[in-house]
Amino acid sequence: MKKKRSSRTKLEVELRCLAEKAKAATHRLAALDAEKKDAVLRDMAEVLEEGASAILLANKKDLVAARQKRLAEAFIERLTLTPKRVEEMASSLRGIADLRDPVGEVIKNWSRPNGLALSKVRTPIGVVLIIYESRPNVTSDCVGLCFKSGNVVILRGGSDALHSNAVIFRRLASVVRRHGLPAEVINLVAVTDRRAVDVLLTLDDSIDLVMPRGGESLIRQVRDKSKIPVIKHYKGICHIYVDEDADLAQAERIVLNAKVQRPGVCNAVETLLVHEGVARDFLPKMIRALRDAGVAVRGCAKTRKFAQGVAAATEEDWRTEYLDLILSVKVVKDVEEAIRHINHYGSHHSDAIVTRDDARTQRFLKEVDSACVYVNASTRFTDGYQFGMGAEIGISTDRLHARGPMGLEELTTYKYVIRGTGQIRE
Amino acid sequence: MKKKRSSRTKLEVELRCLAEKAKAATHRLAALDAEKKDAVLRDMAEVLEEGASAILLANKKDLVAARQKRLAEAFIERLTLTPKRVEEMASSLRGIADLRDPVGEVIKNWSRPNGLALSKVRTPIGVVLIIYESRPNVTSDCVGLCFKSGNVVILRGGSDALHSNAVIFRRLASVVRRHGLPAEVINLVAVTDRRAVDVLLTLDDSIDLVMPRGGESLIRQVRDKSKIPVIKHYKGICHIYVDEDADLAQAERIVLNAKVQRPGVCNAVETLLVHEGVARDFLPKMIRALRDAGVAVRGCAKTRKFAQGVAAATEEDWRTEYLDLILSVKVVKDVEEAIRHINHYGSHHSDAIVTRDDARTQRFLKEVDSACVYVNASTRFTDGYQFGMGAEIGISTDRLHARGPMGLEELTTYKYVIRGTGQIRE
Repeated sequence: MKKKRSSRTKLEVELRCLAEKAKAATHRLAALDAEKKDAVLRDMAEVLEEGASAILLANKKDLVAARQKRLAEAFIERLTLTPKRVEEMASSLRGIADLRDPVGEVIKNWSRPNGLALSKVRTPIGVVLIIYESRPNVTSDCVGLCFKSGNVVILRGGSDALHSNAVIFRRLASVVRRHGLPAEVINLVAVTDRRAVDVLLTLDDSIDLVMPRGGESLIRQVRDKSKIPVIKHYKGICHIYVDEDADLAQAERIVLNAKVQRPGVCNAVETLLVHEGVARDFLPKMIRALRDAGVAVRGCAKTRKFAQGVAAATEEDWRTEYLDLILSVKVVKDVEEAIRHINHYGSHHSDAIVTRDDARTQRFLKEVDSACVYVNASTRFTDGYQFGMGAEIGISTDRLHARGPMGLEELTTYKYVIRGTGQIRE
Repeated sequence: MKKKRSSRTKLEVELRCLAEKAKAATHRLAALDAEKKDAVLRDMAEVLEEGASAILLANKKDLVAARQKRLAEAFIERLTLTPKRVEEMASSLRGIADLRDPVGEVIKNWSRPNGLALSKVRTPIGVVLIIYESRPNVTSDCVGLCFKSGNVVILRGGSDALHSNAVIFRRLASVVRRHGLPAEVINLVAVTDRRAVDVLLTLDDSIDLVMPRGGESLIRQVRDKSKIPVIKHYKGICHIYVDEDADLAQAERIVLNAKVQRPGVCNAVETLLVHEGVARDFLPKMIRALRDAGVAVRGCAKTRKFAQGVAAATEEDWRTEYLDLILSVKVVKDVEEAIRHINHYGSHHSDAIVTRDDARTQRFLKEVDSACVYVNASTRFTDGYQFGMGAEIGISTDRLHARGPMGLEELTTYKYVIRGTGQIRE
């Protein structure tokens, strides 16, 4: 008992010390100019390429251990690095170097009748804690995005990627040192103690933001325990509503793309809603095309009249993110029922209407309460790169601070700069 | 034991039901146009004026009870309504009606090479919970600000203002009903059970944001217990740094204003930092002027050489928000020491430099890590009205979502609207 208590104290002291040093380093990083930051990022890309064989060797160790623990194939796939993936990590760092630096950007200038001149200026958030699971490429991606946006990062990767993350991190840290920067501008929590996350989540004096990247249970745990603000990336239960005035050939292409182009991601469509007026014309062909692409269809009673062998969708189906070649289909009376269904069962991520009618387009875009609402396009475009942000640290399903794809700008906050000539308050 | 459990369950059921109805009402409120909202707000102002005598009578009940409980005079002062204060509540609602509606505003438009047209559009946050202490005017102010920004509000006022809040709320609710809106667009939690707040803070499926308005211990309790995102309004330990190149007469006016014009507020100055090169010229006169205005000065060893009878400032003084006619004073070597002191001891609220030197101005504005950084002006301008926001629901000391004064815009989030012509992901 006594031993346990003292070891916990040691862990707390160690992590508190790490977080306080991280906080102290924020001022130095916030003051770096873009040119310097970009030079560091390009050198980071280079050391990853040069160290590819060492990184792959470390990754082998993690993979052997993961197979011994009989972890799921999907997990092992995410854990696996290849020469191509290491190359992508490097080119992603170079891509971040090429982006405009958001820090110092003047968002707005205005003045007041008393002569005060105000500016709202972008600044880094401060210290960002990222808790993630198996993907080792998250290590370099998050270092790159946080560094460029002037944020000190604390990384807490999954224990199954321990060796891979350590080698990647060590190489990135060597560049930081070589450029004469404090080592604490990037941090990896390497202790294996599982209580480390619990301790980190209490350090709200030093850490400004937590982003859990992983499954829903990880995110919920973080939300429940954290004293630090959290930006959550929950699931995507995305819908496409095919209206009575849709171009049906276009609707078919959009639905097919949103389901099959990459079914395992959060912006893939999970539920198709079809106006009852076009169900007879649209659904038999659509379901045939989906099946040809390997998709299993689950339908409401009306849907099942239009195609043989469609399984019955249950209440549970409307709430399920399949992340797989499965699609639930429901026939609805009108755009109002479609909107109600989406707001009730959806996850407020990405939802689309296919129609040529202006009034229903306006209504759908206004009333569907989701981060991204589409007309006549695939939901698969919800992505920082596709939106033109140049990079993405995740897709927020929260409503505060950042909603939808998060790029560099979403990793910043702002300050007000007020210039006077002696103004005092009357 | 059994009885207690069942009563808690009843409280939980009641509050969950309230929050779910509030969430359901968000869509209706989000769809209201500005004209309708402004008409409601103006009628709300009118019913407060018409009901002034009933409001003052209810307030009397609260005041009698507060005096019987021997609550502090400052508390009773905040609890007290007068005909003038009721008039101010009404005119504040009319002021909100006059402001531009932020909902639906297009923040940004752009398009992508594939022809997709994107817009970032302001939307309400959803359901906002406001937990406050004694001031009954918060009831109508928060109803007004949330209603105008399209947010459903849940108010949880202090039990000592129960009667005042109930009468004010009942009158505002009558206007909502008269305009044919769902009653649940504005809500007051009237149950006296002290566990109500704890239950509300678990309802993150229905409530999108919590803003605790009150003392530090209330805010910390909310932060510790809440599963819902919180925007905090902590204290203001504000600084003015008088540089060696300051216009000393201007510096004196600014310091005096920032300390004495209204000492009990978060943007009043608490610590004066003076460059050692001008301390001899500046401090004796400054301290005399402060004392003439009734300010007690506590100084560092160097400060105390320049004036008789200055009490010694302790380490604790640098961390104290006096909210009173007390000022701590420290002589510093240069702008760097000033910045270090402010970032270390301050509360990242509002800090000012007085100088005519450009380089040091730039450095101070960039490196002081506060919501509002000033040059040659009083810190007392940190305020939504003074910034031209037209209204203010508080001053955030958080770094996420909103920092500094929060007006209507800061009570909104955004969605992405994406218009296509059949685009699919390659």
